Amino acid sequence: MKLLEERILSDGVIKEGGIVKVDSFLNHQMDISLINEIGKEFHRLFEGDGITKILTVEASGIGIACIAAQYFNVPVVFAKKSESKNLDGDVYTSKVVSYTKGKEYDIRVSKKYISAEDRVLIIDDFLAKGKAVFGLCDILDQAGATLCGVGICIEKGFQEGGALIREKGIHLESLAIVELDNCGGIKFRG
Amino acid sequence: MKLLEERILSDGVIKEGGIVKVDSFLNHQMDISLINEIGKEFHRLFEGDGITKILTVEASGIGIACIAAQYFNVPVVFAKKSESKNLDGDVYTSKVVSYTKGKEYDIRVSKKYISAEDRVLIIDDFLAKGKAVFGLCDILDQAGATLCGVGICIEKGFQEGGALIREKGIHLESLAIVELDNCGGIKFRG
Repeated sequence: MKLLEERILSDGVIKEGGIVKVDSFLNHQMDISLINEIGKEFHRLFEGDGITKILTVEASGIGIACIAAQYFNVPVVFAKKSESKNLDGDVYTSKVVSYTKGKEYDIRVSKKYISAEDRVLIIDDFLAKGKAVFGLCDILDQAGATLCGVGICIEKGFQEGGALIREKGIHLESLAIVELDNCGGIKFRG
Repeated sequence: MKLLEERILSDGVIKEGGIVKVDSFLNHQMDISLINEIGKEFHRLFEGDGITKILTVEASGIGIACIAAQYFNVPVVFAKKSESKNLDGDVYTSKVVSYTKGKEYDIRVSKKYISAEDRVLIIDDFLAKGKAVFGLCDILDQAGATLCGVGICIEKGFQEGGALIREKGIHLESLAIVELDNCGGIKFRG
């Protein structure tokens, strides 16, 4: 997606360890006009799939999923990362290791909100090692729901998540795939 | 807001300890059509205030803030709750005690994204004791930004947050103020 690639080039920063900082427009401050274009693009890419729900995980994915959901006219369900009195009863859980936060945590979705009838699009802001996506896929498996695809804003092409997801035959669409050039700068795949 | 009150009555549940469960439409599964109406209502209530940014806090507030921001045509900034390699450098921090999670945590906003020129609307899904709102107000004070108001979806009228915020002369708009009736059911103030 040209608009997103241009924005990464103008405002993104690659830091040591392969951290791509886009906190000025995507995951701390959020440029809602840009995210609206991202939502439209996800809809264009997956509109034929009969999506009934969009699934994401706390926290940065939620805003993007909500904006995108307007074009699909379906609810968003976001997996919770922390224990909360608000989430009781029967839940699907899966373990996820976070690369940027350097720790393992459980993600949890109430069994009430994902069913075997659901056709689900997973949306997230970043794809690196793929741990969050595979955790969400695991929850969909437990629910017997159909995974229609995965929509990612920025894939780190130099980490293995994208390859692992594509190997499984999952329909993955990353709007920008960032690669590192030899000088420590940014380039895009494709 | 009639539509939200009706939805709380039809789908909300009050549990022991004053926990209002609205996870079927607001803070786990999200009904985007309803949240769009909520966003329009916040815009109607604050549109004359020259808002330049909407500020919220991870996680449930993010989707609501993003949908609302479309009507104000301004960016969203969400305060982060956890340490992350993605948030470095100069940050404003404040301590918040969570009633539903039973713990204290830091919220953090990069100094780059809130300035003394900003006129800020705080948006969140719930208001109970007001700890999150006061943490966000503290960050706006540190930045020298102008707090134009606070927009809340559901205020627990039987807890003190709303009264504390109104006492300070802050323009608080809660779209539904839930009170407990004598039989453990729900009623609305006003």
